[in-house]
Amino acid sequence: MLKIIVITHGTFSEGIRSSLEMILGKQEEFLTYSILENCDLESVKSELNDELEKSSASGQEVLFLSDLFFGTPFNLITPLMEHHRFFHITGINLPLVMEIVSNRNAEDIPGMLQESLSLGQSAMLDCVDYLKSAMGSRKEDY
Amino acid sequence: MLKIIVITHGTFSEGIRSSLEMILGKQEEFLTYSILENCDLESVKSELNDELEKSSASGQEVLFLSDLFFGTPFNLITPLMEHHRFFHITGINLPLVMEIVSNRNAEDIPGMLQESLSLGQSAMLDCVDYLKSAMGSRKEDY
Repeated sequence: MLKIIVITHGTFSEGIRSSLEMILGKQEEFLTYSILENCDLESVKSELNDELEKSSASGQEVLFLSDLFFGTPFNLITPLMEHHRFFHITGINLPLVMEIVSNRNAEDIPGMLQESLSLGQSAMLDCVDYLKSAMGSRKEDY
Repeated sequence: MLKIIVITHGTFSEGIRSSLEMILGKQEEFLTYSILENCDLESVKSELNDELEKSSASGQEVLFLSDLFFGTPFNLITPLMEHHRFFHITGINLPLVMEIVSNRNAEDIPGMLQESLSLGQSAMLDCVDYLKSAMGSRKEDY
């Protein structure tokens, strides 16, 4: 099973986990790291490295999910690419995370991640515009 | 100033607020609602209605931000369209919320929201692909 590690500024990681688990139930192999003010970043980086080594030893794939391109969590993860192979998606929203979690046993992980990204992007939308447009279409249809 | 109301399953709303405020500082006119198990949805709906009436009386625009298209928070907000005018974006991520908050005093709110949506979508990406591609381009450039 794909191991998922969510790492964000503040408690966003725990918040999105709470939202996810309310809808899809408790998740295994799903870790969260919250980078708070005065957090010991070296210690977090060392923990992430340990997780990667443990997963590598057992042949498990790892996916990092972060909140912001070039934010502190992103910058903690990127240097780990030097010695480890893993996946990393940034700018997460709930539809993206739900899609990934629902398909984490897929054989083609890169393909599954691309499809999840596409779904996550299209599920970010202006609801008022969408509903007005849907109502307009319906009016024309009937 | 545009009033922002974030409403999500679980504590995602407070989590993303914590992440946002860690980066951009404390926000005014920024409310969060967490829809937990056994939450009294009618009471939340009534509170949201009160917020809309208060803002309408003072001529203030309101933007709802929700986590999931057709999720419970989305379904609480949508019926309020019958009696109120407001903005509503779903599928939020941190780059989107940061962009909106940074431009909440814009004169053209619909235009600002469209630009923020576009930025939020493009800031959701596969970092490994992006970095490999950026490194490849650099190699060719130099």
